[in-house]
Amino acid sequence: MNLPDSDTQQNTSNEDKEAINREQKLIRVAVLGASGYSGSELVGLLHNNSHFKVVAAYASAQATPQPLHAIAPAIAANCDLVVHPWQESELDRLQDLDAVFFALPHETSAELAAQFIARGIKVFDLSGAFRFQSADAFRNAYGFEHPHPELFEQAQYALMEWTQLDPRGMLFAIPGCYPTAATLALKPACESALLVPDARPVITAISGVSGAGRGANLRTSFCEVSLQAYGVLNHRHTPEIAKNLHREVVFTPVLGPYKRGILATCVAELQAGVTEEQVKDIYQQAYQHTPLVQVRETPVAVDHVAHTPMCLLNVHVKAGTLVVVSVLDNLLKGAAAQAMQAANVVFGKPETAGLRGRF
Amino acid sequence: MNLPDSDTQQNTSNEDKEAINREQKLIRVAVLGASGYSGSELVGLLHNNSHFKVVAAYASAQATPQPLHAIAPAIAANCDLVVHPWQESELDRLQDLDAVFFALPHETSAELAAQFIARGIKVFDLSGAFRFQSADAFRNAYGFEHPHPELFEQAQYALMEWTQLDPRGMLFAIPGCYPTAATLALKPACESALLVPDARPVITAISGVSGAGRGANLRTSFCEVSLQAYGVLNHRHTPEIAKNLHREVVFTPVLGPYKRGILATCVAELQAGVTEEQVKDIYQQAYQHTPLVQVRETPVAVDHVAHTPMCLLNVHVKAGTLVVVSVLDNLLKGAAAQAMQAANVVFGKPETAGLRGRF
Amino acid sequence: MNLPDSDTQQNTSNEDKEAINREQKLIRVAVLGASGYSGSELVGLLHNNSHFKVVAAYASAQATPQPLHAIAPAIAANCDLVVHPWQESELDRLQDLDAVFFALPHETSAELAAQFIARGIKVFDLSGAFRFQSADAFRNAYGFEHPHPELFEQAQYALMEWTQLDPRGMLFAIPGCYPTAATLALKPACESALLVPDARPVITAISGVSGAGRGANLRTSFCEVSLQAYGVLNHRHTPEIAKNLHREVVFTPVLGPYKRGILATCVAELQAGVTEEQVKDIYQQAYQHTPLVQVRETPVAVDHVAHTPMCLLNVHVKAGTLVVVSVLDNLLKGAAAQAMQAANVVFGKPETAGLRGRF
Amino acid sequence: MNLPDSDTQQNTSNEDKEAINREQKLIRVAVLGASGYSGSELVGLLHNNSHFKVVAAYASAQATPQPLHAIAPAIAANCDLVVHPWQESELDRLQDLDAVFFALPHETSAELAAQFIARGIKVFDLSGAFRFQSADAFRNAYGFEHPHPELFEQAQYALMEWTQLDPRGMLFAIPGCYPTAATLALKPACESALLVPDARPVITAISGVSGAGRGANLRTSFCEVSLQAYGVLNHRHTPEIAKNLHREVVFTPVLGPYKRGILATCVAELQAGVTEEQVKDIYQQAYQHTPLVQVRETPVAVDHVAHTPMCLLNVHVKAGTLVVVSVLDNLLKGAAAQAMQAANVVFGKPETAGLRGRF
Repeated sequence: MNLPDSDTQQNTSNEDKEAINREQKLIRVAVLGASGYSGSELVGLLHNNSHFKVVAAYASAQATPQPLHAIAPAIAANCDLVVHPWQESELDRLQDLDAVFFALPHETSAELAAQFIARGIKVFDLSGAFRFQSADAFRNAYGFEHPHPELFEQAQYALMEWTQLDPRGMLFAIPGCYPTAATLALKPACESALLVPDARPVITAISGVSGAGRGANLRTSFCEVSLQAYGVLNHRHTPEIAKNLHREVVFTPVLGPYKRGILATCVAELQAGVTEEQVKDIYQQAYQHTPLVQVRETPVAVDHVAHTPMCLLNVHVKAGTLVVVSVLDNLLKGAAAQAMQAANVVFGKPETAGLRGRF
Repeated sequence: MNLPDSDTQQNTSNEDKEAINREQKLIRVAVLGASGYSGSELVGLLHNNSHFKVVAAYASAQATPQPLHAIAPAIAANCDLVVHPWQESELDRLQDLDAVFFALPHETSAELAAQFIARGIKVFDLSGAFRFQSADAFRNAYGFEHPHPELFEQAQYALMEWTQLDPRGMLFAIPGCYPTAATLALKPACESALLVPDARPVITAISGVSGAGRGANLRTSFCEVSLQAYGVLNHRHTPEIAKNLHREVVFTPVLGPYKRGILATCVAELQAGVTEEQVKDIYQQAYQHTPLVQVRETPVAVDHVAHTPMCLLNVHVKAGTLVVVSVLDNLLKGAAAQAMQAANVVFGKPETAGLRGRF
Repeated sequence: MNLPDSDTQQNTSNEDKEAINREQKLIRVAVLGASGYSGSELVGLLHNNSHFKVVAAYASAQATPQPLHAIAPAIAANCDLVVHPWQESELDRLQDLDAVFFALPHETSAELAAQFIARGIKVFDLSGAFRFQSADAFRNAYGFEHPHPELFEQAQYALMEWTQLDPRGMLFAIPGCYPTAATLALKPACESALLVPDARPVITAISGVSGAGRGANLRTSFCEVSLQAYGVLNHRHTPEIAKNLHREVVFTPVLGPYKRGILATCVAELQAGVTEEQVKDIYQQAYQHTPLVQVRETPVAVDHVAHTPMCLLNVHVKAGTLVVVSVLDNLLKGAAAQAMQAANVVFGKPETAGLRGRF
Repeated sequence: MNLPDSDTQQNTSNEDKEAINREQKLIRVAVLGASGYSGSELVGLLHNNSHFKVVAAYASAQATPQPLHAIAPAIAANCDLVVHPWQESELDRLQDLDAVFFALPHETSAELAAQFIARGIKVFDLSGAFRFQSADAFRNAYGFEHPHPELFEQAQYALMEWTQLDPRGMLFAIPGCYPTAATLALKPACESALLVPDARPVITAISGVSGAGRGANLRTSFCEVSLQAYGVLNHRHTPEIAKNLHREVVFTPVLGPYKRGILATCVAELQAGVTEEQVKDIYQQAYQHTPLVQVRETPVAVDHVAHTPMCLLNVHVKAGTLVVVSVLDNLLKGAAAQAMQAANVVFGKPETAGLRGRF
């Protein structure tokens, strides 16, 4: 059983039955890509969410079976889940799944989604495979031809504070970490037509090294990492941000010498006459009922959100310029926690179920 | 209300009543020293423990009232608790408390405990004020005369894996962070008489900077911190470790350039003829049923336990020498989580209530 | 004697005489503010520059005399210089100085410069006291009335790659760390009229914590530091950058979780028709003969320049947008090394004397 | 030319001639393994040492030629040296070398040394290939059969403060980083018979990640690194320390979350009656004339020595226990700077030539 709340039960036989009932109603899920940073975080969240049961977790086909705590020792220390290598034949074993989560390379997600959907299993995809609505846009961003463009139409982009997911859908695209930070920061201004029409916001976002994924790589080896811009004028998250905001942006990602968290500075030109008060009102309204996004009056920092599912914002206005500072944990609100939030909503559970112990 | 699990309720009127009943049975607590690192972590744990309700939180008398999230932005982002300056007059306001937690300087804890106990309020003290049983031992370690040595007799030392707390008691001394790391590492060997009788174990323990507490101090300012031994042959945790193990030790603390977590290397001389297998069996037995302490076969690291309530151990034996490596989060298993664990047990709740979201 | 190169001498009497001659010709200097991070770095550079002799070093009036290595243990381990508290009476003792370096608060520099100049001692000021040419501009940036605006006219702004210092001058204003990073990055484009006339470049610059100076401060204590924007739309270096570039800029400084170094991303809109090749040519020409500033084709990172006097640049152009990434060590090219470079030039020594062991 | 001090020349024709003479007398060296962390540091030191000229630098046979600054951007920014792949045929090209430095894997050093020595080229080896005097001891530590045990007799172990190198020798073994830290810390006590005869000192040493070498490796990738013991009771530096001290030791290495520097805590049992004063006198005498090793009264930290060639020590005595804390930069005094120091002495140059700009 997988019931973090069971500690409130007094173990009478009635309650045992109730627990069994509850187990029967648990949402049964699998995670593919469970050995990566986002994937293992997601397994941890699901493990501690009393509405879900992780029935299987997979790494790549080449991996050897390992207990989760050998791969991700900080997560779920008392969880005895074993992460197995993924093989197509597992599909048959997973017939009674309610949902699958992909924390996979874009190419693999693009290939696999259709097979799960065909079996009636909902797909929550943390990769970039289904974040665009057109094959051209996808090819421009990711550099290869999407094998299943016919799925684009049904994919729902799960930027949770700005969308109403249709729970009958089968395919949910979890936004990228940078796009989540930048879009949450600028969307209120864009939606309210506060910005000069053609001006391009300038976004510089610093990310912790976990954003580069898990693996042996000279570039992300400890002694090589230091503050460094990369993908300048060329990063694949740029079109995703532009799509979300319905305008071009200049986006510069920077690798920072720390493990987790993104801070984005988002600079935009306001229309003449827009006042600070107007701007602040619009931001407060946009996020007054969003438990995982808050506008703060005091400065926000990466450590305020690391290990939490929160995104915090600061809004500054002066002389026709808007600067919004946005922070979130790239592995949580930028990946696993947003997926958890989406699955909660899709399955009719409270939006923050399984996330509350973290904030 | 303060019910993290309320997200499972469907808000029918029956369930509302149940929630009210539950609230009435919540354990009502206050935290003194809530603006320090351990104190604010503890408020966060209590806030997410469905059996407890934090009715008040205090900083020092000189502080100005501030919301918790202004002091500790990473904790309880959606909690609207305000931290007030402590004043004696608050004692009257807190009549219906079940327990108080002190995350205070030793001197202040030593002074205040009696007044709460007199009002029937249980005291969980995270300072060193009640960790010794004699006024002499206390004076030697802390350098001042204890104002209430009459309380020593009733104080229970809450190293949870090695004690059976009497829930009728009123005063619980939470062990220090270094002593928890060192004692959990060496106690199985000491209890089983594996060590050469008079030999002194040699413990070197590296701690993150949060161990030095919160405050403006040149020594712990960012640019001054680098790996450095301190309190060599002179640290006040040495007698606490020696008391726990019933033998002298050489203890060298080292400040490390990171925020949280302790790693202790504990070296001891084994009796002639003791085998590796014997030692490992004894450690496995000691910790086979302890949810928050585990013996691991693979190397343990500080990040495996940072932000978690766990202590992980590695045991090595060769040529008559025992080396145990121990890691824990100094603010959690070394302070706040151990206090939470103690309070859970004292109030008859599951040992890990409120801690499960973290591991 | 203070001759790092003396190790090549064979101690014959002729060479002794030569050494004495050389000592007599050494440039005699004092450093005020030697206990700060920039100040102690500067003492280290001067100590290892065979053309200079540090005859005295001072901390604030309240300090107690301490050997340099007690204040800055990483600098000049074998140097026996003692740092004394500054007192006005020292002025008489320093009659035969050639130059003084101020690594002082703006207010103190503004007050003290005139007295040294009156005694014929050249002043190299690392503070902001003499970086503006008008009392209004100064007041706007620094928020107080300058006590000696009559000195503005003679102050020379020592951004070394973009100025020809008049060695007969008496007052040299060393640029700020952020302005050095941003100006070196954008000046070639601005000087060559590559940018859209009225567009404001957007600069986001991340700085290590040493930029906040040495001192006990909760904000810069180890556990509180994490990536955080500050002074948004309000930082005093903004007008200094604007003055250097002759155009308005949007400048956002960010505090980063590391000790030293600045990385600035500088985004600007190019005039229609300007090509990548044109831009790159102009940058290569601007810095082809500058030993301490280089344009690199491969990505630049903070650790490439930390502990060195270098500034490295990357230039990117796409779709009418210019992004220049600039890195330097805020304590060296952003402060002490630029002061050393200026003093070398003013006293007719090779520009990089005393800096070569570092790069 | 490679003359950092040439900046003092006025370029008259006499001085040109002198410079040419000097160049002719420069010690001509090559570095093998120049793309590793120790190797590139060493090239930087040699480049800034006016007595040496680096005529060639090599990486492994599989490497492609690259400028030094592409491999080690923080080193020698203005040096145009190209690092070539090593091939046996280079041996002919290097006929006029005075010395070669190996910053190579043990196996490769063990193989290559003989060929250089046969050509009359002195070998300074930073690997472990020649640190032992017997084939058995070597095999035990390094796990393979040494291909040239006949060279052991002529190899000189270059722990500079405790040896008098014979400059006529051809093979110099630079000590390991941990052994340098531990031996410098304990040698004075051992040499003076202060310790209980059979007691084993207990050494715990924390090293920055650069100690693990340069390369893509999951274990040293940024997000995986955190404080962690490794090689417990099993590290190959243990016998090297034991050999140096002529007694068994318990050595526990710990990987620390920072880039460079080692801190070792060395605990030993003193003979009855040995006083603190005696111990401190012996340490002061041992290191009163050693420019790169100093005994300090105030606490020492890794950042006091990072980027410098220094080793700093603290000595503590209490109740029959000696604790010596030792810090050094593993890449400098623990590798490249000690090699530089050895080469200076062997070639009759001042011990600290080329190192002075760093301290």
